[in-house]
Amino acid sequence: MIFHRVSIVGLGLMGGSLGLALRQRGLAAHVVGCGREVLQKRAIEMGAIDSGTTDAAEAASDSDLIVLCTPVETSIRLMREIAPRMKPGALLTDVGSTKQSFADAAREIFGDAAHATVLPGHPLAGRELSGLENAVADLYTNCVWTLTPLGQGEPASHQALRAALEALGARIVVTSPEEHDRTLAYTSHLPQMLSTALALTLEEELGAGNPALEIHAGGLRTMLRLAMSDPVMWEQIAASNAQNIAAALERFEAELRKLRESLGDPEFRKKFEAAREFARILRG
Amino acid sequence: MIFHRVSIVGLGLMGGSLGLALRQRGLAAHVVGCGREVLQKRAIEMGAIDSGTTDAAEAASDSDLIVLCTPVETSIRLMREIAPRMKPGALLTDVGSTKQSFADAAREIFGDAAHATVLPGHPLAGRELSGLENAVADLYTNCVWTLTPLGQGEPASHQALRAALEALGARIVVTSPEEHDRTLAYTSHLPQMLSTALALTLEEELGAGNPALEIHAGGLRTMLRLAMSDPVMWEQIAASNAQNIAAALERFEAELRKLRESLGDPEFRKKFEAAREFARILRG
Repeated sequence: MIFHRVSIVGLGLMGGSLGLALRQRGLAAHVVGCGREVLQKRAIEMGAIDSGTTDAAEAASDSDLIVLCTPVETSIRLMREIAPRMKPGALLTDVGSTKQSFADAAREIFGDAAHATVLPGHPLAGRELSGLENAVADLYTNCVWTLTPLGQGEPASHQALRAALEALGARIVVTSPEEHDRTLAYTSHLPQMLSTALALTLEEELGAGNPALEIHAGGLRTMLRLAMSDPVMWEQIAASNAQNIAAALERFEAELRKLRESLGDPEFRKKFEAAREFARILRG
Repeated sequence: MIFHRVSIVGLGLMGGSLGLALRQRGLAAHVVGCGREVLQKRAIEMGAIDSGTTDAAEAASDSDLIVLCTPVETSIRLMREIAPRMKPGALLTDVGSTKQSFADAAREIFGDAAHATVLPGHPLAGRELSGLENAVADLYTNCVWTLTPLGQGEPASHQALRAALEALGARIVVTSPEEHDRTLAYTSHLPQMLSTALALTLEEELGAGNPALEIHAGGLRTMLRLAMSDPVMWEQIAASNAQNIAAALERFEAELRKLRESLGDPEFRKKFEAAREFARILRG
Protein backbone atom coordinates (compact mmCIF):
# COMPACT_ATOMS: atom_id res chain seq x y z
CA MET A 1 0.00 0.00 0.00
CA ILE A 2 1.63 3.24 -1.11
CA PHE A 3 -1.31 5.67 -1.12
CA HIS A 4 -4.32 6.13 1.14
CA ARG A 5 -6.38 7.82 -1.48
CA VAL A 6 -5.72 8.44 -5.16
CA SER A 7 -7.88 10.65 -7.38
CA ILE A 8 -7.99 9.76 -11.06
CA VAL A 9 -9.50 12.61 -13.00
CA GLY A 10 -10.67 11.50 -16.45
CA LEU A 11 -11.99 7.98 -16.97
CA GLY A 12 -10.76 7.06 -20.43
CA LEU A 13 -8.18 4.52 -21.59
CA MET A 14 -5.36 6.03 -19.51
CA GLY A 15 -7.29 6.75 -16.32
CA GLY A 16 -9.23 3.50 -16.41
CA SER A 17 -6.10 1.43 -16.96
CA LEU A 18 -4.30 3.24 -14.16
CA GLY A 19 -7.18 2.58 -11.76
CA LEU A 20 -7.26 -1.10 -12.67
CA ALA A 21 -3.50 -1.41 -12.20
CA LEU A 22 -3.37 0.46 -8.87
CA ARG A 23 -6.25 -1.55 -7.42
CA GLN A 24 -5.14 -4.95 -8.70
CA ARG A 25 -1.67 -4.42 -7.24
CA GLY A 26 -3.02 -3.04 -3.98
CA LEU A 27 -1.13 0.22 -4.30
CA ALA A 28 -3.98 2.46 -3.07
CA ALA A 29 -6.47 1.96 -0.22
CA HIS A 30 -9.08 3.95 -2.14
CA VAL A 31 -9.27 5.15 -5.73
CA VAL A 32 -11.73 7.94 -6.54
CA GLY A 33 -12.61 8.38 -10.19
CA CYS A 34 -13.78 11.69 -11.56
CA GLY A 35 -15.77 11.72 -14.77
CA ARG A 36 -19.29 11.63 -16.20
CA GLU A 37 -21.72 9.51 -14.20
CA VAL A 38 -22.06 6.82 -16.85
CA LEU A 39 -18.27 6.41 -16.83
CA GLN A 40 -18.09 6.34 -13.03
CA LYS A 41 -20.62 3.52 -13.00
CA ARG A 42 -18.80 1.51 -15.63
CA ALA A 43 -15.41 2.10 -13.95
CA ILE A 44 -16.77 0.83 -10.63
CA GLU A 45 -18.18 -2.27 -12.36
CA MET A 46 -14.84 -2.90 -14.06
CA GLY A 47 -12.99 -2.59 -10.77
CA ALA A 48 -11.06 0.46 -11.95
CA ILE A 49 -12.22 2.75 -9.10
CA ASP A 50 -13.75 2.41 -5.64
CA SER A 51 -16.02 5.45 -5.84
CA GLY A 52 -16.89 8.19 -8.28
CA THR A 53 -17.66 11.90 -8.43
CA THR A 54 -18.15 14.60 -11.02
CA ASP A 55 -16.30 17.24 -8.98
CA ALA A 56 -12.55 17.10 -9.55
CA ALA A 57 -11.68 19.61 -6.82
CA GLU A 58 -13.73 17.77 -4.25
CA ALA A 59 -12.23 14.41 -5.25
CA ALA A 60 -8.76 15.87 -4.98
CA SER A 61 -9.19 17.63 -1.64
CA ASP A 62 -8.56 14.53 0.43
CA SER A 63 -6.06 12.65 -1.83
CA ASP A 64 -2.34 11.96 -1.50
CA LEU A 65 -2.04 11.66 -5.26
CA ILE A 66 -4.07 13.31 -8.00
CA VAL A 67 -3.59 12.03 -11.54
CA LEU A 68 -5.04 14.12 -14.36
CA CYS A 69 -5.88 11.73 -17.19
CA THR A 70 -7.41 14.23 -19.58
CA PRO A 71 -6.09 15.97 -22.71
CA VAL A 72 -3.47 18.64 -22.06
CA GLU A 73 -5.67 21.73 -22.25
CA THR A 74 -8.31 20.19 -20.00
CA SER A 75 -5.65 19.13 -17.49
CA ILE A 76 -4.34 22.68 -17.24
CA ARG A 77 -7.83 23.99 -16.54
CA LEU A 78 -8.45 21.28 -13.94
CA MET A 79 -5.09 21.89 -12.22
CA ARG A 80 -6.12 25.51 -11.73
CA GLU A 81 -9.43 24.40 -10.16
CA ILE A 82 -7.88 21.76 -7.93
CA ALA A 83 -4.85 23.74 -6.70
CA PRO A 84 -6.53 25.63 -3.83
CA ARG A 85 -8.08 22.41 -2.49
CA MET A 86 -4.99 20.17 -2.40
CA LYS A 87 -3.93 19.00 1.03
CA PRO A 88 -0.35 19.64 2.25
CA GLY A 89 2.15 17.08 1.00
CA ALA A 90 -0.10 15.84 -1.78
CA LEU A 91 1.29 15.42 -5.30
CA LEU A 92 -0.40 16.19 -8.59
CA THR A 93 0.68 14.50 -11.82
CA ASP A 94 -0.74 14.04 -15.30
CA VAL A 95 -0.39 11.75 -18.29
CA GLY A 96 -0.51 14.38 -21.05
CA SER A 97 1.28 13.82 -24.35
CA THR A 98 3.10 17.16 -24.20
CA LYS A 99 4.72 18.66 -21.13
CA GLN A 100 5.87 22.22 -21.77
CA SER A 101 2.52 24.03 -21.55
CA PHE A 102 1.46 21.96 -18.53
CA ALA A 103 4.78 22.64 -16.79
CA ASP A 104 4.50 26.38 -17.50
CA ALA A 105 0.99 26.44 -16.05
CA ALA A 106 2.10 24.52 -12.94
CA ARG A 107 4.93 27.01 -12.31
CA GLU A 108 2.52 29.89 -12.73
CA ILE A 109 -0.14 28.39 -10.42
CA PHE A 110 2.11 27.02 -7.66
CA GLY A 111 5.10 29.35 -7.79
CA ASP A 112 7.96 28.18 -5.55
CA ALA A 113 5.93 25.16 -4.44
CA ALA A 114 5.53 23.88 -8.02
CA HIS A 115 8.46 21.44 -7.97
CA ALA A 116 7.28 19.69 -4.78
CA THR A 117 3.58 19.80 -5.65
CA VAL A 118 3.47 18.88 -9.33
CA LEU A 119 5.43 16.20 -11.15
CA PRO A 120 4.30 16.15 -14.78
CA GLY A 121 4.37 12.73 -16.42
CA HIS A 122 3.76 10.99 -19.71
CA PRO A 123 3.41 7.22 -20.03
CA LEU A 124 4.21 6.14 -23.59
CA ALA A 125 1.44 3.63 -23.94
CA GLY A 126 -0.25 2.72 -27.23
CA ARG A 127 -2.90 5.17 -28.24
CA GLU A 128 -4.70 4.00 -31.37
CA LEU A 129 -7.40 2.78 -29.04
CA SER A 130 -9.12 5.07 -26.61
CA GLY A 131 -11.99 5.01 -24.13
CA LEU A 132 -12.66 3.26 -20.84
CA GLU A 133 -13.90 0.16 -22.69
CA ASN A 134 -10.34 -0.49 -23.85
CA ALA A 135 -8.75 -0.01 -20.44
CA VAL A 136 -6.56 -2.91 -19.25
CA ALA A 137 -4.60 -3.46 -16.05
CA ASP A 138 -1.30 -4.09 -17.87
CA LEU A 139 -1.31 -1.06 -20.17
CA TYR A 140 1.69 0.37 -18.33
CA THR A 141 3.67 -2.83 -17.82
CA ASN A 142 7.07 -2.38 -19.50
CA CYS A 143 6.01 1.00 -20.84
CA VAL A 144 8.34 3.97 -20.66
CA TRP A 145 6.88 6.54 -18.24
CA THR A 146 8.57 9.90 -18.56
CA LEU A 147 8.66 12.25 -15.60
CA THR A 148 9.58 15.88 -16.21
CA PRO A 149 10.35 17.53 -12.84
CA LEU A 150 9.96 21.28 -12.54
CA GLY A 151 13.16 21.78 -10.57
CA GLN A 152 16.37 20.19 -9.26
CA GLY A 153 16.57 17.46 -6.59
CA GLU A 154 13.89 15.01 -5.54
CA PRO A 155 11.33 16.25 -3.01
CA ALA A 156 9.90 13.63 -0.63
CA SER A 157 6.51 14.03 -2.33
CA HIS A 158 7.89 12.53 -5.55
CA GLN A 159 9.03 9.27 -4.00
CA ALA A 160 5.66 7.60 -3.59
CA LEU A 161 4.76 8.23 -7.24
CA ARG A 162 8.04 6.79 -8.46
CA ALA A 163 7.59 3.74 -6.24
CA ALA A 164 4.04 3.20 -7.50
CA LEU A 165 5.05 3.50 -11.17
CA GLU A 166 7.85 1.02 -10.65
CA ALA A 167 5.42 -1.33 -8.94
CA LEU A 168 3.23 -1.10 -12.06
CA GLY A 169 6.15 -2.30 -14.15
CA ALA A 170 6.77 1.02 -15.89
CA ARG A 171 10.30 2.13 -16.80
CA ILE A 172 10.83 5.67 -15.53
CA VAL A 173 12.79 8.07 -17.73
CA VAL A 174 13.45 11.55 -16.33
CA THR A 175 13.89 14.52 -18.64
CA SER A 176 12.95 18.20 -18.76
CA PRO A 177 9.56 19.36 -20.11
CA GLU A 178 11.35 21.23 -22.92
CA GLU A 179 13.46 18.25 -23.97
CA HIS A 180 10.47 15.93 -23.70
CA ASP A 181 8.43 17.95 -26.16
CA ARG A 182 11.29 18.42 -28.60
CA THR A 183 12.08 14.69 -28.56
CA LEU A 184 8.45 13.61 -28.85
CA ALA A 185 7.99 15.87 -31.85
CA TYR A 186 10.45 13.51 -33.59
CA THR A 187 9.69 10.15 -32.01
CA SER A 188 5.90 10.36 -31.76
CA HIS A 189 4.31 13.40 -33.41
CA LEU A 190 6.29 13.17 -36.66
CA PRO A 191 5.44 9.46 -37.21
CA GLN A 192 1.78 10.30 -36.52
CA MET A 193 1.76 13.15 -39.06
CA LEU A 194 3.35 10.88 -41.68
CA SER A 195 0.71 8.19 -41.25
CA THR A 196 -2.08 10.77 -41.42
CA ALA A 197 -0.59 12.52 -44.46
CA LEU A 198 -0.12 9.14 -46.18
CA ALA A 199 -3.81 8.37 -45.71
CA LEU A 200 -4.77 11.81 -47.05
CA THR A 201 -2.53 11.37 -50.10
CA LEU A 202 -3.98 7.96 -50.97
CA GLU A 203 -7.51 9.22 -50.38
CA GLU A 204 -6.98 12.15 -52.73
CA GLU A 205 -5.03 10.25 -55.35
CA LEU A 206 -6.85 6.92 -55.46
CA GLY A 207 -10.04 7.34 -53.40
CA ALA A 208 -11.20 5.03 -50.65
CA GLY A 209 -13.27 2.68 -52.83
CA ASN A 210 -10.68 2.24 -55.58
CA PRO A 211 -10.11 -1.45 -56.41
CA ALA A 212 -6.47 -0.56 -57.15
CA LEU A 213 -6.06 -0.31 -53.38
CA GLU A 214 -6.23 -4.09 -53.26
CA ILE A 215 -2.76 -4.05 -54.76
CA HIS A 216 -0.69 -3.37 -51.70
CA ALA A 217 1.56 -5.36 -49.44
CA GLY A 218 1.41 -5.49 -45.65
CA GLY A 219 3.58 -2.39 -45.53
CA LEU A 220 0.74 -0.04 -46.32
CA ARG A 221 -1.46 -1.39 -43.53
CA THR A 222 1.46 -0.97 -41.15
CA MET A 223 2.07 2.61 -42.19
CA LEU A 224 -1.63 3.50 -41.82
CA ARG A 225 -2.04 2.13 -38.29
CA LEU A 226 -1.34 5.45 -36.58
CA ALA A 227 -3.74 7.27 -38.91
CA MET A 228 -6.52 5.61 -36.90
CA SER A 229 -5.62 7.62 -33.78
CA ASP A 230 -8.08 9.99 -32.11
CA PRO A 231 -8.36 13.34 -33.97
CA VAL A 232 -9.41 15.26 -30.84
CA MET A 233 -6.42 14.07 -28.85
CA TRP A 234 -4.09 14.94 -31.72
CA GLU A 235 -5.61 18.36 -32.18
CA GLN A 236 -4.60 19.12 -28.60
CA ILE A 237 -1.13 17.61 -28.96
CA ALA A 238 -0.56 19.60 -32.12
CA ALA A 239 -1.75 22.84 -30.54
CA SER A 240 0.45 22.35 -27.48
CA ASN A 241 3.60 21.44 -29.40
CA ALA A 242 3.11 23.23 -32.71
CA GLN A 243 6.56 24.80 -32.97
CA ASN A 244 8.48 21.60 -32.29
CA ILE A 245 6.24 19.60 -34.62
CA ALA A 246 6.61 22.16 -37.41
CA ALA A 247 10.39 22.04 -37.01
CA ALA A 248 10.45 18.23 -37.10
CA LEU A 249 8.22 18.20 -40.17
CA GLU A 250 10.46 20.66 -41.97
CA ARG A 251 13.50 18.51 -41.20
CA PHE A 252 11.65 15.46 -42.50
CA GLU A 253 10.47 17.28 -45.62
CA ALA A 254 14.07 18.17 -46.44
CA GLU A 255 15.17 14.56 -45.89
CA LEU A 256 12.38 13.21 -48.08
CA ARG A 257 13.20 15.69 -50.84
CA LYS A 258 16.84 14.57 -50.78
CA LEU A 259 15.75 10.94 -50.94
CA ARG A 260 13.51 11.74 -53.92
CA GLU A 261 16.35 13.55 -55.67
CA SER A 262 18.61 10.54 -55.14
CA LEU A 263 16.27 8.15 -57.02
CA GLY A 264 18.50 6.33 -59.50
CA ASP A 265 21.71 7.62 -57.81
CA PRO A 266 24.34 5.52 -55.98
CA GLU A 267 23.52 7.77 -53.00
CA PHE A 268 20.07 6.14 -52.84
CA ARG A 269 21.34 2.73 -51.72
CA LYS A 270 23.60 4.34 -49.12
CA LYS A 271 20.62 6.15 -47.66
CA PHE A 272 18.67 2.90 -47.49
CA GLU A 273 21.59 1.20 -45.77
CA ALA A 274 21.92 3.98 -43.17
CA ALA A 275 18.16 3.92 -42.54
CA ARG A 276 18.16 0.14 -42.11
CA GLU A 277 21.03 0.33 -39.65
CA PHE A 278 19.21 2.95 -37.60
CA ALA A 279 15.92 1.05 -37.64
CA ARG A 280 17.69 -2.14 -36.56
CA ILE A 281 19.28 -0.41 -33.58
CA LEU A 282 16.08 1.29 -32.51
CA ARG A 283 13.92 -1.79 -32.96
CA GLY A 284 16.51 -3.88 -31.11
CA MET B 1 -0.50 -32.03 -60.93
CA ILE B 2 -0.54 -28.95 -63.15
CA PHE B 3 3.03 -28.82 -64.48
CA HIS B 4 5.50 -31.51 -65.55
CA ARG B 5 8.50 -29.35 -64.93
CA VAL B 6 8.83 -25.88 -63.39
CA SER B 7 12.04 -23.85 -63.39
CA ILE B 8 12.49 -21.44 -60.51
CA VAL B 9 15.31 -19.04 -61.30
CA GLY B 10 16.61 -17.33 -58.18
CA LEU B 11 16.57 -19.12 -54.83
CA GLY B 12 15.76 -16.40 -52.33
CA LEU B 13 12.69 -15.79 -50.19
CA MET B 14 10.31 -15.65 -53.16
CA GLY B 15 11.74 -18.52 -55.20
CA GLY B 16 12.29 -20.76 -52.20
CA SER B 17 8.78 -20.19 -50.89
CA LEU B 18 7.29 -20.85 -54.33
CA GLY B 19 9.19 -24.13 -54.62
CA LEU B 20 8.06 -25.26 -51.19
CA ALA B 21 4.45 -24.39 -51.98
CA LEU B 22 4.39 -26.06 -55.43
CA ARG B 23 5.98 -29.24 -54.12
CA GLN B 24 3.95 -29.52 -50.93
CA ARG B 25 0.73 -29.12 -52.89
CA GLY B 26 1.84 -31.52 -55.60
CA LEU B 27 1.43 -28.95 -58.36
CA ALA B 28 4.61 -29.87 -60.27
CA ALA B 29 6.17 -33.26 -61.04
CA HIS B 30 9.63 -31.75 -60.95
CA VAL B 31 10.94 -28.39 -59.75
CA VAL B 32 14.36 -27.28 -60.97
CA GLY B 33 16.02 -24.51 -59.01
CA CYS B 34 18.59 -22.22 -60.56
CA GLY B 35 21.01 -20.40 -58.30
CA ARG B 36 24.42 -20.62 -56.65
CA GLU B 37 25.47 -24.15 -55.67
CA VAL B 38 25.25 -23.51 -51.95
CA LEU B 39 21.65 -22.34 -52.40
CA GLN B 40 20.75 -25.32 -54.61
CA LYS B 41 21.99 -27.66 -51.90
CA ARG B 42 20.07 -25.88 -49.16
CA ALA B 43 16.91 -25.68 -51.29
CA ILE B 44 17.03 -29.44 -51.96
CA GLU B 45 17.48 -30.13 -48.24
CA MET B 46 14.52 -27.85 -47.41
CA GLY B 47 12.34 -29.61 -49.96
CA ALA B 48 11.96 -26.46 -52.07
CA ILE B 49 13.33 -28.00 -55.31
CA ASP B 50 13.96 -31.46 -56.75
CA SER B 51 17.19 -30.63 -58.55
CA GLY B 52 19.48 -27.68 -59.09
CA THR B 53 21.60 -26.02 -61.75
CA THR B 54 23.54 -22.81 -62.25
CA ASP B 55 22.48 -22.44 -65.91
CA ALA B 56 19.12 -20.68 -66.22
CA ALA B 57 18.75 -21.26 -69.97
CA GLU B 58 19.45 -24.97 -69.63
CA ALA B 59 17.01 -25.26 -66.71
CA ALA B 60 14.35 -23.49 -68.72
CA SER B 61 14.78 -25.44 -71.96
CA ASP B 62 12.66 -28.34 -70.85
CA SER B 63 10.12 -26.58 -68.58
CA ASP B 64 6.39 -25.79 -68.98
CA LEU B 65 6.72 -22.87 -66.61
CA ILE B 66 9.69 -20.65 -65.88
CA VAL B 67 9.46 -18.31 -62.90
CA LEU B 68 12.07 -15.59 -62.61
CA CYS B 69 12.48 -14.84 -58.89
CA THR B 70 15.25 -12.30 -59.16
CA PRO B 71 15.30 -8.49 -58.95
CA VAL B 72 13.79 -6.72 -61.98
CA GLU B 73 16.98 -5.86 -63.85
CA THR B 74 18.37 -9.35 -63.41
CA SER B 75 15.09 -10.88 -64.58
CA ILE B 76 15.18 -8.84 -67.79
CA ARG B 77 18.72 -10.02 -68.52
CA LEU B 78 17.78 -13.64 -67.78
CA MET B 79 14.63 -13.46 -69.93
CA ARG B 80 16.82 -12.43 -72.85
CA GLU B 81 19.13 -15.43 -72.24
CA ILE B 82 16.33 -17.92 -71.76
CA ALA B 83 14.08 -16.79 -74.65
CA PRO B 84 15.77 -18.75 -77.50
CA ARG B 85 15.73 -21.97 -75.45
CA MET B 86 12.07 -22.01 -74.35
CA LYS B 87 10.01 -24.89 -75.65
CA PRO B 88 6.79 -24.23 -77.60
CA GLY B 89 3.78 -23.59 -75.38
CA ALA B 90 5.89 -22.84 -72.33
CA LEU B 91 5.13 -19.76 -70.22
CA LEU B 92 7.55 -17.40 -68.55
CA THR B 93 6.55 -15.30 -65.55
CA ASP B 94 8.32 -13.29 -62.87
CA VAL B 95 7.71 -11.93 -59.37
CA GLY B 96 9.33 -8.52 -59.80
CA SER B 97 8.12 -5.55 -57.79
CA THR B 98 7.68 -3.32 -60.85
CA LYS B 99 6.21 -4.42 -64.17
CA GLN B 100 6.60 -1.72 -66.83
CA SER B 101 10.27 -2.25 -67.70
CA PHE B 102 9.90 -6.03 -67.61
CA ALA B 103 6.81 -5.83 -69.86
CA ASP B 104 8.59 -3.54 -72.31
CA ALA B 105 11.54 -5.93 -72.49
CA ALA B 106 9.22 -8.93 -73.04
CA ARG B 107 7.48 -7.16 -75.94
CA GLU B 108 10.81 -6.29 -77.47
CA ILE B 109 12.23 -9.83 -77.09
CA PHE B 110 9.16 -11.87 -78.10
CA GLY B 111 7.35 -9.49 -80.47
CA ASP B 112 3.91 -10.81 -81.46
CA ALA B 113 4.40 -13.90 -79.30
CA ALA B 114 4.96 -11.86 -76.13
CA HIS B 115 1.37 -12.03 -74.84
CA ALA B 116 1.17 -15.84 -75.09
CA THR B 117 4.75 -16.47 -73.90
CA VAL B 118 5.19 -14.05 -71.01
CA LEU B 119 2.74 -13.23 -68.23
CA PRO B 120 4.43 -10.80 -65.83
CA GLY B 121 3.40 -11.18 -62.19
CA HIS B 122 3.91 -9.67 -58.77
CA PRO B 123 2.88 -11.40 -55.57
CA LEU B 124 2.43 -8.83 -52.80
CA ALA B 125 4.07 -10.83 -50.07
CA GLY B 126 5.88 -9.30 -47.08
CA ARG B 127 9.41 -8.29 -47.87
CA GLU B 128 11.20 -7.06 -44.80
CA LEU B 129 12.76 -10.50 -44.61
CA SER B 130 14.73 -11.92 -47.49
CA GLY B 131 16.81 -14.96 -48.30
CA LEU B 132 16.14 -18.66 -48.71
CA GLU B 133 16.46 -19.18 -44.96
CA ASN B 134 13.20 -17.29 -44.48
CA ALA B 135 11.28 -19.17 -47.19
CA VAL B 136 7.99 -20.72 -46.05
CA ALA B 137 5.39 -22.79 -47.89
CA ASP B 138 2.52 -20.44 -47.01
CA LEU B 139 4.11 -17.13 -48.04
CA TYR B 140 1.57 -16.78 -50.84
CA THR B 141 -1.53 -18.01 -49.01
CA ASN B 142 -4.12 -15.22 -49.09
CA CYS B 143 -1.64 -12.89 -50.74
CA VAL B 144 -2.69 -10.69 -53.65
CA TRP B 145 -0.85 -11.87 -56.78
CA THR B 146 -1.07 -9.32 -59.57
CA LEU B 147 -0.82 -10.48 -63.16
CA THR B 148 -0.18 -7.86 -65.84
CA PRO B 149 -0.91 -9.42 -69.27
CA LEU B 150 0.82 -7.97 -72.32
CA GLY B 151 -2.29 -8.08 -74.51
CA GLN B 152 -6.02 -8.73 -74.69
CA GLY B 153 -7.72 -12.11 -74.16
CA GLU B 154 -6.41 -15.13 -72.31
CA PRO B 155 -4.12 -17.45 -74.25
CA ALA B 156 -4.24 -21.16 -73.29
CA SER B 157 -0.70 -20.86 -71.91
CA HIS B 158 -1.90 -18.57 -69.12
CA GLN B 159 -4.46 -20.96 -67.72
CA ALA B 160 -2.10 -23.36 -65.97
CA LEU B 161 -0.35 -20.50 -64.14
CA ARG B 162 -3.66 -19.04 -62.96
CA ALA B 163 -4.81 -22.48 -61.76
CA ALA B 164 -1.54 -23.03 -59.88
CA LEU B 165 -1.65 -19.63 -58.18
CA GLU B 166 -5.21 -20.22 -57.10
CA ALA B 167 -4.22 -23.63 -55.78
CA LEU B 168 -1.55 -21.87 -53.68
CA GLY B 169 -4.27 -19.74 -52.11
CA ALA B 170 -3.25 -16.50 -53.82
CA ARG B 171 -5.88 -13.92 -54.84
CA ILE B 172 -5.27 -12.98 -58.48
CA VAL B 173 -5.74 -9.33 -59.47
CA VAL B 174 -5.30 -8.47 -63.15
CA THR B 175 -4.14 -5.04 -64.22
CA SER B 176 -1.89 -3.46 -66.84
CA PRO B 177 1.86 -3.08 -66.27
CA GLU B 178 1.47 0.72 -66.47
CA GLU B 179 -1.37 0.86 -63.94
CA HIS B 180 0.42 -1.61 -61.66
CA ASP B 181 3.50 0.59 -61.42
CA ARG B 182 1.54 3.78 -60.92
CA THR B 183 -0.57 2.22 -58.17
CA LEU B 184 2.38 0.57 -56.43
CA ALA B 185 4.20 3.90 -56.36
CA TYR B 186 1.43 5.01 -53.97
CA THR B 187 0.57 1.82 -52.11
CA SER B 188 4.04 0.33 -51.66
CA HIS B 189 6.91 2.54 -52.77
CA LEU B 190 5.67 5.72 -51.08
CA PRO B 191 5.17 4.02 -47.67
CA GLN B 192 8.67 2.55 -48.00
CA MET B 193 10.24 5.93 -48.76
CA LEU B 194 8.48 7.47 -45.76
CA SER B 195 9.79 4.82 -43.39
CA THR B 196 13.32 5.20 -44.76
CA ALA B 197 13.21 9.00 -44.65
CA LEU B 198 11.86 8.86 -41.09
CA ALA B 199 14.84 6.74 -40.03
CA LEU B 200 17.24 9.14 -41.76
CA THR B 201 15.64 12.16 -40.07
CA LEU B 202 15.86 10.62 -36.60
CA GLU B 203 19.41 9.46 -37.24
CA GLU B 204 20.49 12.95 -38.28
CA GLU B 205 18.53 14.81 -35.63
CA LEU B 206 18.98 12.57 -32.59
CA GLY B 207 21.63 9.98 -33.53
CA ALA B 208 21.30 6.23 -33.09
CA GLY B 209 22.76 6.01 -29.57
CA ASN B 210 20.77 8.91 -28.11
CA PRO B 211 19.05 7.95 -24.81
CA ALA B 212 16.21 10.33 -25.81
CA LEU B 213 15.20 7.64 -28.30
CA GLU B 214 13.93 5.61 -25.37
CA ILE B 215 11.10 8.12 -25.19
CA HIS B 216 8.87 6.80 -27.91
CA ALA B 217 5.64 4.88 -28.11
CA GLY B 218 4.96 1.78 -30.19
CA GLY B 219 4.10 4.00 -33.13
CA LEU B 220 7.72 4.75 -33.94
CA ARG B 221 8.67 1.07 -34.09
CA THR B 222 5.71 0.48 -36.37
CA MET B 223 6.67 3.30 -38.70
CA LEU B 224 10.29 2.09 -38.91
CA ARG B 225 9.48 -1.53 -39.80
CA LEU B 226 9.72 -0.97 -43.55
CA ALA B 227 13.03 0.87 -43.16
CA MET B 228 14.56 -2.55 -42.48
CA SER B 229 13.88 -3.69 -46.06
CA ASP B 230 16.66 -4.75 -48.41
CA PRO B 231 18.51 -1.73 -49.90
CA VAL B 232 19.60 -3.63 -53.03
CA MET B 233 16.04 -4.68 -53.85
CA TRP B 234 14.79 -1.14 -53.31
CA GLU B 235 17.54 0.35 -55.44
CA GLN B 236 16.22 -1.72 -58.33
CA ILE B 237 12.58 -0.90 -57.61
CA ALA B 238 13.40 2.79 -57.43
CA ALA B 239 15.38 2.70 -60.67
CA SER B 240 12.62 0.86 -62.52
CA ASN B 241 9.78 3.09 -61.29
CA ALA B 242 11.54 6.39 -60.66
CA GLN B 243 9.02 8.65 -62.43
CA ASN B 244 5.96 7.26 -60.69
CA ILE B 245 7.71 7.28 -57.32
CA ALA B 246 8.86 10.87 -57.76
CA ALA B 247 5.29 11.90 -58.65
CA ALA B 248 3.85 10.11 -55.61
CA LEU B 249 6.47 11.69 -53.35
CA GLU B 250 5.70 15.15 -54.68
CA ARG B 251 1.99 14.60 -54.03
CA PHE B 252 2.78 13.45 -50.50
CA GLU B 253 5.13 16.36 -49.87
CA ALA B 254 2.35 18.79 -50.81
CA GLU B 255 -0.08 16.98 -48.49
CA LEU B 256 2.36 17.00 -45.59
CA ARG B 257 3.09 20.69 -46.10
CA LYS B 258 -0.64 21.45 -45.97
CA LEU B 259 -0.96 19.38 -42.79
CA ARG B 260 1.95 21.29 -41.24
CA GLU B 261 0.40 24.61 -42.21
CA SER B 262 -2.88 23.54 -40.57
CA LEU B 263 -1.26 22.99 -37.13
CA GLY B 264 -3.47 24.86 -34.69
CA ASP B 265 -6.25 25.36 -37.30
CA PRO B 266 -9.78 23.85 -37.24
CA GLU B 267 -8.77 22.32 -40.60
CA PHE B 268 -6.28 20.11 -38.73
CA ARG B 269 -8.91 18.02 -36.97
CA LYS B 270 -10.88 17.60 -40.18
CA LYS B 271 -7.80 16.23 -41.89
CA PHE B 272 -7.25 13.77 -39.05
CA GLU B 273 -10.87 12.65 -39.29
CA ALA B 274 -10.64 12.11 -43.06
CA ALA B 275 -7.38 10.19 -42.66
CA ARG B 276 -8.86 7.98 -39.95
CA GLU B 277 -11.88 7.21 -42.09
CA PHE B 278 -9.65 6.21 -45.01
CA ALA B 279 -7.36 4.09 -42.82
CA ARG B 280 -10.35 2.30 -41.31
CA ILE B 281 -11.73 1.41 -44.73
CA LEU B 282 -8.41 0.21 -46.07
CA ARG B 283 -7.50 -1.75 -42.98
CA GLY B 284 -10.95 -3.33 -42.92
